[in-house]
Amino acid sequence: MVQYKEVAISEFFEKNSHLLGFDNPTKALLTVVKEAVDNSVDACEEANILPGIIVKIKSVKKDVFQVTVEDKGPGIEEKYVKKVFGKLLFGSKFKSLGEAGMQSRGQQGIGISASILYSQLTTGESALIESKVKNKMHYSCRLIIDTSKNIPIIEDEKKIESVKEQGTKITLKLKGVYRRVKGPEGFLKYVAIANPHAQITFFSPEGNKKVFKRVITKLPKKPKKVKPHPHGVELGTLIKMLARTKSRTLQAFLMNDFSKVGNTGAKEICDLVKLNLQTRPNAITREQISKLMDSMEQVKLQRPPTDCLSPIGEENIIKGLRKEYPADFVAACTRPVAVYRAIPFQIEVGLVYSKELPIDKQVNLVRFANKVPLFYQQSECGIYKAVVKTQWKRYGLQQPSGSLPIGPLVLAVHVASIWVPFISEGKQAIAPYPEIVKEIKLALSELGRKLQRYLSAEQRKYARERKRKLYERYAIEVATSLSNITGKNKDDIMGLLKKEIDKRGR
Amino acid sequence: MVQYKEVAISEFFEKNSHLLGFDNPTKALLTVVKEAVDNSVDACEEANILPGIIVKIKSVKKDVFQVTVEDKGPGIEEKYVKKVFGKLLFGSKFKSLGEAGMQSRGQQGIGISASILYSQLTTGESALIESKVKNKMHYSCRLIIDTSKNIPIIEDEKKIESVKEQGTKITLKLKGVYRRVKGPEGFLKYVAIANPHAQITFFSPEGNKKVFKRVITKLPKKPKKVKPHPHGVELGTLIKMLARTKSRTLQAFLMNDFSKVGNTGAKEICDLVKLNLQTRPNAITREQISKLMDSMEQVKLQRPPTDCLSPIGEENIIKGLRKEYPADFVAACTRPVAVYRAIPFQIEVGLVYSKELPIDKQVNLVRFANKVPLFYQQSECGIYKAVVKTQWKRYGLQQPSGSLPIGPLVLAVHVASIWVPFISEGKQAIAPYPEIVKEIKLALSELGRKLQRYLSAEQRKYARERKRKLYERYAIEVATSLSNITGKNKDDIMGLLKKEIDKRGR
Repeated sequence: MVQYKEVAISEFFEKNSHLLGFDNPTKALLTVVKEAVDNSVDACEEANILPGIIVKIKSVKKDVFQVTVEDKGPGIEEKYVKKVFGKLLFGSKFKSLGEAGMQSRGQQGIGISASILYSQLTTGESALIESKVKNKMHYSCRLIIDTSKNIPIIEDEKKIESVKEQGTKITLKLKGVYRRVKGPEGFLKYVAIANPHAQITFFSPEGNKKVFKRVITKLPKKPKKVKPHPHGVELGTLIKMLARTKSRTLQAFLMNDFSKVGNTGAKEICDLVKLNLQTRPNAITREQISKLMDSMEQVKLQRPPTDCLSPIGEENIIKGLRKEYPADFVAACTRPVAVYRAIPFQIEVGLVYSKELPIDKQVNLVRFANKVPLFYQQSECGIYKAVVKTQWKRYGLQQPSGSLPIGPLVLAVHVASIWVPFISEGKQAIAPYPEIVKEIKLALSELGRKLQRYLSAEQRKYARERKRKLYERYAIEVATSLSNITGKNKDDIMGLLKKEIDKRGR
Repeated sequence: MVQYKEVAISEFFEKNSHLLGFDNPTKALLTVVKEAVDNSVDACEEANILPGIIVKIKSVKKDVFQVTVEDKGPGIEEKYVKKVFGKLLFGSKFKSLGEAGMQSRGQQGIGISASILYSQLTTGESALIESKVKNKMHYSCRLIIDTSKNIPIIEDEKKIESVKEQGTKITLKLKGVYRRVKGPEGFLKYVAIANPHAQITFFSPEGNKKVFKRVITKLPKKPKKVKPHPHGVELGTLIKMLARTKSRTLQAFLMNDFSKVGNTGAKEICDLVKLNLQTRPNAITREQISKLMDSMEQVKLQRPPTDCLSPIGEENIIKGLRKEYPADFVAACTRPVAVYRAIPFQIEVGLVYSKELPIDKQVNLVRFANKVPLFYQQSECGIYKAVVKTQWKRYGLQQPSGSLPIGPLVLAVHVASIWVPFISEGKQAIAPYPEIVKEIKLALSELGRKLQRYLSAEQRKYARERKRKLYERYAIEVATSLSNITGKNKDDIMGLLKKEIDKRGR
């Protein structure tokens, strides 16, 4: 007899932890830092608090590290702490198909509990969670996940008075390998670039302290929730929305449950599908729903709203890059909001040109999705593909075919969206949707033109400088000869010549 | 206030269907066929039945197809049907860390329910499931998945008498794009190669019927369940195993819950960690467990057992390739069982050389994992990397650096394991673990030597043939001249010359 059983999601991801970014110890250490920091920044922004985060990595023994991430965010209510950290697929950010959504760093409610899962799998130790909500007691507990049931097991629960105002802190031990450049410190540097309003303090396993300073004291515009747009909704989603809606007429359903459908739009859609505006949503047959979807697709509507997105902004990209790199030239470009499969997204790009960077190497490409740096799977990422497809020779850079351009540059590309289409749950590369790749290329060519103007100006300046030096070298000879011929004072002639060189050299 | 909620696994995968192989309509159609066929072959073999499978794809309207997969396997008990098809993470094949496992096509209990999820999302239609268990009524129902709860919703349930002996049949509609070569038909052809004991009948959307014939009537050796090996067990897994075990002493635990630990091994481990053999498993402290793991790692033990694997076998690979390709030369090689991270695996390779295949193109690489063809992400797959790293010039083939070799060949590589390390849940590429890549290279070089012997023999034969043709062309002239000189009969001389050519040409 075949034995069937139900598998808990934790058990599935415990065995398949490589799907979540834990496929090797170097990546695992980075992933833990990333998930905790993402959550902290999200929580601070949500609560209108400027993010201040402390990340500590301590070496426990060979290939085992203790990671602590602490913020001054709003804290998490005691009753939620256990589930947020001790249960996979529990959180505040996951939006079902058909539900209203907005841009956020986390998307699923998996990352931080998966980190705890990996920690207990590799070291057998529980995680320490501390949370202080304003005007409440300081709460702490040690926690492991019972993977067979996907529930937390709590040890050592404590509530104490504390002078600390508010914040969340997580401490866990895991098997890992520490790398400085392409590891947690590099990650935090990139976080600092995309989030110049955050102050991040990092203590490395070697005992060094590094502060990534806050250079902007204004919080980014808070993204708003946005309902799905009628164009691009799948049939199954529409069926579900109709079954779940609180609207009592088809008209109300179309106008309330979708974005950008007004009176006229609703009427046009209903006319096309030959349904009365007053039809009850639950009275619509499967066949009619299928036709309804086609009509929704056909009717002309405004594009999805854009206030669900929170771009970094050109000015802030420039500030972020300038504070982390030596720079001779910095530029940025934020594109208008665009749409793929009815989902709004926005592209931003920035660059640093610096003579202190290597001149004969590929540019350093820094990828971001919703302000979070992406570290792995670069060559599969839509961002990389767009950079490679851009004709950088036009903008004054060398570029071997099929490669990144060559030059002393850092190139930053940010994709902001209410739903970033990652190619895997490890969230390290963005699927190369044609609409996204196209927008990135447009942004890059705008940036490229700025670069080109700078490089041409630099070249002209250089040429002028060379010319001036050449003139000056011969001016003395000319002045001496002219003085001999004309009998006039040599210094006077020299003065006149210099004036002339200055005038022409400008 | 932040709103938290629990997310059902179905809702997660509904939104993230690209993680499971549904990232585009071409791949989606293939994935549905793949998941259903995998399940059918597994079920037949499990029940000692030679697999006989019928796959039908019908075009419903533009980009919508109806897929039917029917087998004569044991059927599924009525009480399980709803969950197997209507619930994600429910099945018979998932093994938790620390549980005994064996080679099988499916691994997770996700594939077929995810197919139904995708079907209902894109067409809004329920799936039709039919199941006939021997000596029971014919059961059928239509089924959709309530994604918010990860439970099936059953419509139209029927039980009728039927003359049909047994089997399972699934019918579903989905948005898809049909491709002939790199689509379902190509997939089934490869299935037929790796499973020459299966008979597969395919009806294409164009109305063509194609039969992939069974050429072996013996079922493959049935793999046995194998317990984890002490080398390579993670600490978290060991803690869980100790908590769950039914053994009442540490000695019994080591000997019963692991493979290849005998009396001596158990004693050595206990001595090293300074624990009594009679210690109760639940009385061991965290600290002791950590030391126990180190001891288990240190003690010398036999390698993991190999009867958990079911390779195709050299003879069957040759039969499988011969029946699906025109062939001048076919060879195969099955390696001994090897181990990565304490998990047994086995590599098999085969090749077809045929003058009917293109001579100036890259060889056609066909990848298999547990007898299932892999279609996507070739360049990220450990199999591809091993083929590219092999020095094919040694074996008589051209090979541009970093590429597959060039020549009129089909190259098949099979990785069999109780746990195939796929790089993503779409199960299309195998992680390039060094042990796996090395074994594949060893198998390929063995195969390469066979190919080289064939090609050299072919070259010698060709050279002889050319020589003989040259001799024959001049023989007549020589015979005529000799006849003129000697006055002997020309035909007699010609006869003698021909005899001589034949002798030398051999």
